[in-house]
Amino acid sequence: MNPVDIIVKKRDGGRLSAEELRYFVDGFVAGDIPDYQVAAWAMAVYFQGMDPQETTALTMAMAESGDQLDLHHALPPGAIIVDKHSSGGVGDKTTLAVGPIVAACGLAVGKMSGRGLSFTGGTIDKLESIRGWSPELSEEQFLKQLQTVGLVVAGQTADLAPADKKLYALRDVTGTVPSLPLIAGSIMSKKLAAGADAIVLDVKCGHGAFMETLDQARALAELMVEIGSRAGRRMTALITQMEQPLGDAIGNALEVKEAIVTLHGQGPADFQELVESVAAEMLRLGYGGESGLNAVDARSRISDVIASGAALEKFKAFVAAQGGDVALVDHPERLPAAPVTLPLTANADGYVQAIDARELGLTAVDLGGGRHKKGEPIDHRVGIVLARKVGARVNAGDLLCTIHAADEASAQAAAQRVRAAYRLGHGAVESLPIVYERISSVRA
Amino acid sequence: MNPVDIIVKKRDGGRLSAEELRYFVDGFVAGDIPDYQVAAWAMAVYFQGMDPQETTALTMAMAESGDQLDLHHALPPGAIIVDKHSSGGVGDKTTLAVGPIVAACGLAVGKMSGRGLSFTGGTIDKLESIRGWSPELSEEQFLKQLQTVGLVVAGQTADLAPADKKLYALRDVTGTVPSLPLIAGSIMSKKLAAGADAIVLDVKCGHGAFMETLDQARALAELMVEIGSRAGRRMTALITQMEQPLGDAIGNALEVKEAIVTLHGQGPADFQELVESVAAEMLRLGYGGESGLNAVDARSRISDVIASGAALEKFKAFVAAQGGDVALVDHPERLPAAPVTLPLTANADGYVQAIDARELGLTAVDLGGGRHKKGEPIDHRVGIVLARKVGARVNAGDLLCTIHAADEASAQAAAQRVRAAYRLGHGAVESLPIVYERISSVRA
Repeated sequence: MNPVDIIVKKRDGGRLSAEELRYFVDGFVAGDIPDYQVAAWAMAVYFQGMDPQETTALTMAMAESGDQLDLHHALPPGAIIVDKHSSGGVGDKTTLAVGPIVAACGLAVGKMSGRGLSFTGGTIDKLESIRGWSPELSEEQFLKQLQTVGLVVAGQTADLAPADKKLYALRDVTGTVPSLPLIAGSIMSKKLAAGADAIVLDVKCGHGAFMETLDQARALAELMVEIGSRAGRRMTALITQMEQPLGDAIGNALEVKEAIVTLHGQGPADFQELVESVAAEMLRLGYGGESGLNAVDARSRISDVIASGAALEKFKAFVAAQGGDVALVDHPERLPAAPVTLPLTANADGYVQAIDARELGLTAVDLGGGRHKKGEPIDHRVGIVLARKVGARVNAGDLLCTIHAADEASAQAAAQRVRAAYRLGHGAVESLPIVYERISSVRA
Repeated sequence: MNPVDIIVKKRDGGRLSAEELRYFVDGFVAGDIPDYQVAAWAMAVYFQGMDPQETTALTMAMAESGDQLDLHHALPPGAIIVDKHSSGGVGDKTTLAVGPIVAACGLAVGKMSGRGLSFTGGTIDKLESIRGWSPELSEEQFLKQLQTVGLVVAGQTADLAPADKKLYALRDVTGTVPSLPLIAGSIMSKKLAAGADAIVLDVKCGHGAFMETLDQARALAELMVEIGSRAGRRMTALITQMEQPLGDAIGNALEVKEAIVTLHGQGPADFQELVESVAAEMLRLGYGGESGLNAVDARSRISDVIASGAALEKFKAFVAAQGGDVALVDHPERLPAAPVTLPLTANADGYVQAIDARELGLTAVDLGGGRHKKGEPIDHRVGIVLARKVGARVNAGDLLCTIHAADEASAQAAAQRVRAAYRLGHGAVESLPIVYERISSVRA
């Protein structure tokens, strides 16, 4: 085997074997195969694609390039560990509500999560709005909390899929990011290495997501479900709407507040629905197996843990276990708040026809709530809270949204952009659905 | 401008501007644009191609990346400098005969030439069979000899097209060699930097050449003629046959002998014809301009300088000027000769249906006449001399060819391979034409 033969085989449309892909990935990580050969190969993959079998082999090779977690020895025999992954969007605080609900229903949720970059936020950034809460756990602490609380959200403590990290960095500077098998392999290699038995993928679709069309999102979802299934995991993907921001809140502390409201069962309609849909899929995979749990029963269990307060209690136990101030969960008004709030109102009567999610995400970054480069500090207080979403009828003077800013100048700058991101018009439009499609390795 | 945008533009099928290509080539040579970005770009070019305008811009950027020769100040005002280039084949000693003929007709021929690698030989290796002859000339010596003799063949004394050298090395290890615009750009960048006003390209086609099909050879020839024309040079390409070796001799001293015979007008039919065809095209470009020199007149001048001995005298003056022993030209039997000669005869009656040129080229390398890696020493004495070529009727016992070897063992090993490379059969076949097509920027 040599790297040039592997590049040429892919260039000419051949199918790479698992052995060839492992040789290539291992050689890349070891530094034996130079960046320039991997760059040429990635461009050949961009043009020639990879079939699901190849993509799975690539994903496995990347998953096995570093640590692989096995969380089972921390749990009773037969316990199923479920994980979720979102492809990223604006206002996506889903994990904050889904985790406690699913854990309250008795499944173990142990997640490694990331920080925000560009127009999408990160779960860890959001949770750090809670004074004292820390993502830094030793492996021992992680396993103990999984046993005692059943819910953990940690930073990348283990060295998961270093091949993916190295390959992604190279793709980023060689024009080879938008390749479906490489995107799917990147996401799934980390998920497989993280050790869950069942994975629910929330594939965002629309202008505020990386996949802008339903066809793209469906292709990615199908491929990831197939990779996970081939790797022996139970898989469901939901393709969900990201034309406008998810829920009402964008910004770290603002999103934590919204997640708490949602655990009370009173979240914004689209977000409450998405949270319960994702949680239901996690329960169905976790309690699936041969007998299965149907969608109605899954929803019923979720309603119960919300109504009983068990989900909120689970969130509090989780926050406390990781050093956070639980009083803030009971009194979310005490979460860090921006000194300046600027309401934005409609100039005329009409309908909200569109809200540019990506522009709002970028505006929140520029308010200080996100980062342009890795490692930048962020302001947890700032962001945008929407009062009207797509489909709403508004009269002149009605509140559209409120900007939360560190100072007057940045509030004004944001206001201009947010106003331009709202499209108001005379024609009535439907409100947008939140879940488009479900793709699963288990029966509907 | 940034490298990723340029890669993405090409990946998506866009046309790169001259400014973008110059930025990319200059950045690569300066080390500011890393190998991995150029590798991804080259693979994108492999898939998306480049139009002639882009390819010309790339070629010019590479040609201008190093020294650019201007030989005119060594010559009378209005003098036209002609050059030729062969895409490489087996038994290709064309320059050795064409150079003296064209120079004897009054045109200045100043060439930089290379050494052999793999199955193709190199002009400089061949000329070094002549005791004392040296390719090492200072720029001053080069220009003086061009004035006084009108014919120079030197090694790469100047730093011509370093961008091409660097890009070729990268393509070689990233599966991006077989890209038509990159091949054309590589050849033409060196030719343009070498400063000729008129260039005749001998594009070899067939199993013993890099372009194996007529379509490939034609596409390359057309593209190179277009690049040269856009760069203001007079251009003609001949597409010539390389299914079987060119002429009878393969091997350095053996080929020098054959070139001398050809300067006497008595070369093997295919080689004599090719030499006179290439020389005629060089004369037509050199004496072309508005008035033009027609094909018949060009051939007539060539016949004259051969018949009068002027071409042979020019060769001797050239050899003498570069330190070679002229007595060897008058007495080619004194050129270095192999100690072992092994005749190979036909086993049965029949026709020579094919001779695998590539295999004979590789056999000559293994006899010691060529090199597998740059810098290896070679044995000028060894090689193969064909007695029968494709189309010949043979009887059992007739001589097919003679192997010239350093020892008995290597002769025997070569004999086995050469016998397998000759295909004899009962069916009569035509002898092969030598010139397939002519493509020119000037009228036929």
